[in-house]
Amino acid sequence: MLASGMAYTPSPPDPNAPPARINLLSDTQTRPTPAMREAMARAEVGDEQTGDDPTTNLLQERVAALLGKQAAVFLPSGTMCNVTTTLATCRPGDEIIAHRTAHILSREGGAHAALGGFQITGLDGDDGQFSLDAFRAALHPKNRYEPPQVMVSAEQTANIGGGTIWPQATLDAVAGAGKDSGLWTHIDGARLMNAVVATGVSTERMTKGWDSVWIDFSKGLGAPVGAVLAGPRDFIDEVWRWKQRLGGSMRQSGVIAAACLYALDHHVDRLADDHANARRLASGLAQIDGVEVQTPQTNLVFFRPDRAGVSGPALVAGLRARGVVLAMMDGRIRACTHLDVDTDMIEETLDHVREIVRAA
Amino acid sequence: MLASGMAYTPSPPDPNAPPARINLLSDTQTRPTPAMREAMARAEVGDEQTGDDPTTNLLQERVAALLGKQAAVFLPSGTMCNVTTTLATCRPGDEIIAHRTAHILSREGGAHAALGGFQITGLDGDDGQFSLDAFRAALHPKNRYEPPQVMVSAEQTANIGGGTIWPQATLDAVAGAGKDSGLWTHIDGARLMNAVVATGVSTERMTKGWDSVWIDFSKGLGAPVGAVLAGPRDFIDEVWRWKQRLGGSMRQSGVIAAACLYALDHHVDRLADDHANARRLASGLAQIDGVEVQTPQTNLVFFRPDRAGVSGPALVAGLRARGVVLAMMDGRIRACTHLDVDTDMIEETLDHVREIVRAA
Amino acid sequence: MLASGMAYTPSPPDPNAPPARINLLSDTQTRPTPAMREAMARAEVGDEQTGDDPTTNLLQERVAALLGKQAAVFLPSGTMCNVTTTLATCRPGDEIIAHRTAHILSREGGAHAALGGFQITGLDGDDGQFSLDAFRAALHPKNRYEPPQVMVSAEQTANIGGGTIWPQATLDAVAGAGKDSGLWTHIDGARLMNAVVATGVSTERMTKGWDSVWIDFSKGLGAPVGAVLAGPRDFIDEVWRWKQRLGGSMRQSGVIAAACLYALDHHVDRLADDHANARRLASGLAQIDGVEVQTPQTNLVFFRPDRAGVSGPALVAGLRARGVVLAMMDGRIRACTHLDVDTDMIEETLDHVREIVRAA
Amino acid sequence: MLASGMAYTPSPPDPNAPPARINLLSDTQTRPTPAMREAMARAEVGDEQTGDDPTTNLLQERVAALLGKQAAVFLPSGTMCNVTTTLATCRPGDEIIAHRTAHILSREGGAHAALGGFQITGLDGDDGQFSLDAFRAALHPKNRYEPPQVMVSAEQTANIGGGTIWPQATLDAVAGAGKDSGLWTHIDGARLMNAVVATGVSTERMTKGWDSVWIDFSKGLGAPVGAVLAGPRDFIDEVWRWKQRLGGSMRQSGVIAAACLYALDHHVDRLADDHANARRLASGLAQIDGVEVQTPQTNLVFFRPDRAGVSGPALVAGLRARGVVLAMMDGRIRACTHLDVDTDMIEETLDHVREIVRAA
Repeated sequence: MLASGMAYTPSPPDPNAPPARINLLSDTQTRPTPAMREAMARAEVGDEQTGDDPTTNLLQERVAALLGKQAAVFLPSGTMCNVTTTLATCRPGDEIIAHRTAHILSREGGAHAALGGFQITGLDGDDGQFSLDAFRAALHPKNRYEPPQVMVSAEQTANIGGGTIWPQATLDAVAGAGKDSGLWTHIDGARLMNAVVATGVSTERMTKGWDSVWIDFSKGLGAPVGAVLAGPRDFIDEVWRWKQRLGGSMRQSGVIAAACLYALDHHVDRLADDHANARRLASGLAQIDGVEVQTPQTNLVFFRPDRAGVSGPALVAGLRARGVVLAMMDGRIRACTHLDVDTDMIEETLDHVREIVRAA
Repeated sequence: MLASGMAYTPSPPDPNAPPARINLLSDTQTRPTPAMREAMARAEVGDEQTGDDPTTNLLQERVAALLGKQAAVFLPSGTMCNVTTTLATCRPGDEIIAHRTAHILSREGGAHAALGGFQITGLDGDDGQFSLDAFRAALHPKNRYEPPQVMVSAEQTANIGGGTIWPQATLDAVAGAGKDSGLWTHIDGARLMNAVVATGVSTERMTKGWDSVWIDFSKGLGAPVGAVLAGPRDFIDEVWRWKQRLGGSMRQSGVIAAACLYALDHHVDRLADDHANARRLASGLAQIDGVEVQTPQTNLVFFRPDRAGVSGPALVAGLRARGVVLAMMDGRIRACTHLDVDTDMIEETLDHVREIVRAA
Repeated sequence: MLASGMAYTPSPPDPNAPPARINLLSDTQTRPTPAMREAMARAEVGDEQTGDDPTTNLLQERVAALLGKQAAVFLPSGTMCNVTTTLATCRPGDEIIAHRTAHILSREGGAHAALGGFQITGLDGDDGQFSLDAFRAALHPKNRYEPPQVMVSAEQTANIGGGTIWPQATLDAVAGAGKDSGLWTHIDGARLMNAVVATGVSTERMTKGWDSVWIDFSKGLGAPVGAVLAGPRDFIDEVWRWKQRLGGSMRQSGVIAAACLYALDHHVDRLADDHANARRLASGLAQIDGVEVQTPQTNLVFFRPDRAGVSGPALVAGLRARGVVLAMMDGRIRACTHLDVDTDMIEETLDHVREIVRAA
Repeated sequence: MLASGMAYTPSPPDPNAPPARINLLSDTQTRPTPAMREAMARAEVGDEQTGDDPTTNLLQERVAALLGKQAAVFLPSGTMCNVTTTLATCRPGDEIIAHRTAHILSREGGAHAALGGFQITGLDGDDGQFSLDAFRAALHPKNRYEPPQVMVSAEQTANIGGGTIWPQATLDAVAGAGKDSGLWTHIDGARLMNAVVATGVSTERMTKGWDSVWIDFSKGLGAPVGAVLAGPRDFIDEVWRWKQRLGGSMRQSGVIAAACLYALDHHVDRLADDHANARRLASGLAQIDGVEVQTPQTNLVFFRPDRAGVSGPALVAGLRARGVVLAMMDGRIRACTHLDVDTDMIEETLDHVREIVRAA
């Protein structure tokens, strides 16, 4: 069941609000750096639909290699990576297994049912992850009364779970059990690179055994637009058909693919800074009496100030009035660190929280 | 999440098995009585698609009146009542709220996703029922990231919940809260008449505030084929369009509608006998050491023999070898009483269970 | 393109209209004979969903053998035969090739798009049939911009085409070319038995090379409800899954399957009488000055009275006032002969037409 | 029916082919100019999903004003403008009326059936346009057997029709008749600005009476990525929901929206140059004996060289070998002029055609 308040709904801009000096809302809010813009301006381009955009082609090759897959395709968003994957691999009435808080179930507007006719079964489990046992227990033999089970999906890192990293053993075991049951195995890698940087495990090793994997460039990697989905060559061919139908085919997409290439070269390792800032924020929050914080594994910090005498929405509003932006998600406050957030901003944010709590 | 083993999958007929003398598998297994067959043979008929089948028309009018709705339509099955209702009232990507064990979610092969693109959110709750609080907690404000919520459905009685009867107060409150939120309110009344007979509450009163309601004639009512869906007139018009598309439109359907009319006249009150037999069976089972039985509210008896030293599947197999048929459902054994089951059969079944348990 | 007026929309019953003594509206209007009703009343039954209805099982076996296919399944209507076939064999976005007047395109409410997401390409061609050349010209190589072509469907006889019989050579050639291109080949056999009786070609021979074929029992064969779809065993298994989802699964369906078995034994050869009556009607109409008649090949007679000074709708209304029922279809009047229409009725109808034309 | 060869399938790049010096394949192949790239590099950006991208917001406002509509939304492609429009306004099983060569029917991979369950009826008519009479003849009263008709779509200019401009009187009359019948009226404006420049009629006037209209920026306007769809505010709200589901929501889309704004300011009037070049090309081709040319109205030139002794594909191949790129479309050769094509290139192309024909 969907927990109430799972939706992340930014308030409409308040004309009287001060400028947002510190933006902890999401890593989707990052703006391209001057050097990234320069790379975009210089990008060699062609028509991607006729296979003639060299920059897009290069990006696709690099991501396929990074993920250890045969082929890859550039798409305007991570949601389209998920949607084209299910459309390319499932039939109407098929069942997909995921965690009950997974983005594909809770945050894509029912797209997989709406566009493909797929039923997503949401498993329970701590930290946005399900166990091998929970996965196995959800499998059923073929029969006329239940949907055929055809896909299992894991979200790495698990956003609503707290930006948590799936243990490698679980990833491997679920992929193995999924393949044993004939399922397509899929990783929603919106923040996969955060997990890679945090663990030191290679991207290819981490996603081994998973048929399709994508990474998002418009989150922590800091590009303005785009995600790349990788998998077997015939799967990518079928994804192209759906990309065309959905209207995700572009033309001189090299202008935005260039930013993604730049991010691969310059913005991966620096995710470690975001993780350090997240730990700093969490540590500071935990020292405030009554604030409950989930220990961050990557760049997301979930916390509850209620026992400190101020409700989540009140704290969010109070911070917004001081130029610090973050939001409620799934009943808690989520703060997200990224390349537009530095250590001073973390310290300033902590000062504001302390003041608001003190005044409560 | 779907509990493992929820599927009810009858084994293929074993050619060496003795005849099924006592059939507790399901009330769908009832056979038309000689008097019911006589009514079918005499039925006045016409073409239902041109509105010319007088027997079908009469059945529709009687059920609409019984349920206190403007209009009704005859359909080949209860599943088609559910499917046409969601198709007529939801748009792709809309969300339907039901209990996680509801037939529409767990037993219709993903039909609502497959055919309509609807996402069903399965709420938790004891006895196959969700509370008003759980329902309210599942509601969310409109936003771009979550599906619009457009329907709430209750299954009366709740089959997998144990054939339980939703309290009238809950039915009323959920309907009220649903209408307050602009939702369509729907009752899957596969065994609604069992609840009506067991409670003495009138059909119209019980379903007051619910926009669409259907009753099944091929379960405890004993007709061979058919169900009738009732609701507002313009809704029924739209259901007709989907009935046509699904291939549910028939021709001289009076031959089967006549059996339903007969059932309305002769097989409603006698459901009390089935309930008495269910209580007798449950009471007998409960006296066997180690057998755990859910107290039946209607004609379904769920029990677990494991602590008596015999597993559910083993007991089912042992009974089948003695000519008594029932099945595992959702991890327990379900026995169903109906008009082809009399008190002697209940006693004989209890004898067999005792013997098998004793020999274990 | 859909011709205007293609819809066959019977008028609502006029309370002042005289009884319909002569019903030429459709062979769907036939009523079960006393002997057929007797067969229904005696039918041995069980639960078809658990494979336990012996009469339904027998009907399925007999139709599979008749059509030379591995397996068959009983469904509530011919439309559901078409719908389950496309759902079982196509994926969303696939293309089906048929004649532009085919029932699946013009008369099933957009069901194949609505339920499955399929695009039907309607070919031109005389008499409701397309040529091998037209079929070949419609094929295109695989590309990202056009839907994959996966099925070709022929309607035998072609209703809107005039109840015409596809020449065996065309059926064979289209099936061959379809299989060469990897297409599923399907025959909508709503009136296939009329073609079989009229030509003397066996059912199996006529449909050789076509993967799936169905026959309707509620048209000229005179049963009240039902159609049987036949094809390869794994296809029928998949059809069963969709039958379940659509709500087409019934319970003691033997009560209606018995009528179909009776029809197979007693109502096939007599279709020749309907054909003779159709020829008699056409011949009489053709002798009326100004009435244009398409020479009937089976039991359908299409004609236009306009040049005789009376419009089609006016003639239909005039005949209805005299107790003779037929309707406009696709801009012409269609008269349909069947087992409730005898030679005297044909003569009386001709008398009425002559009188109305004379008075015009 | 889909004419054979309608698909426009560029051949895979031939590694031995000379560089494509003259690209007449499509106006989608235009590359951003240095000034346009500069505008992109300077673009002010934010997160479009939270309404914070000022450049995207400005583009949307300007296009809404240009088209005289309440609101507008930026999307990654013209296909997504069509797909979100039908998804936002139709229900599964609804019928859309368009010309049989319209992009939505022939070039979007069956997307409207696949994603929405809509049936598109393709009307006949010269030059890719249907007449008011043909439109009216296609309308039918509501009934259970045919899909509800809910939308009419016109493609301005009509690509496969020859880049032709719908007469204003026809546009006005079809919109009026459509609204009279309760239909949503939609203009696929992939090349609408070409029609506007060629006729001198204002954009707002040309599309008056049409509920939704979009223009493409990645065709003749020369931007790398994007299209903007305009209409009533509540429609645009619903389009946003589908944009989210399809994965068309982006983040700092200002980097590409800036190119569209630049195109609005600098690339509209210059479409007249493309039209002049198209006339020059057509005129030169027409003087070659045996070459049949459709007189261009905008920037597309369709011609057939067969009577000059060389087949279309042979001429396309011959030109490609000389560095001139164009393609077969719908059985003819299509040449497209755009901002990367100047008058000298036209003259050179004519020289090559003359030489190839002479050598034939």
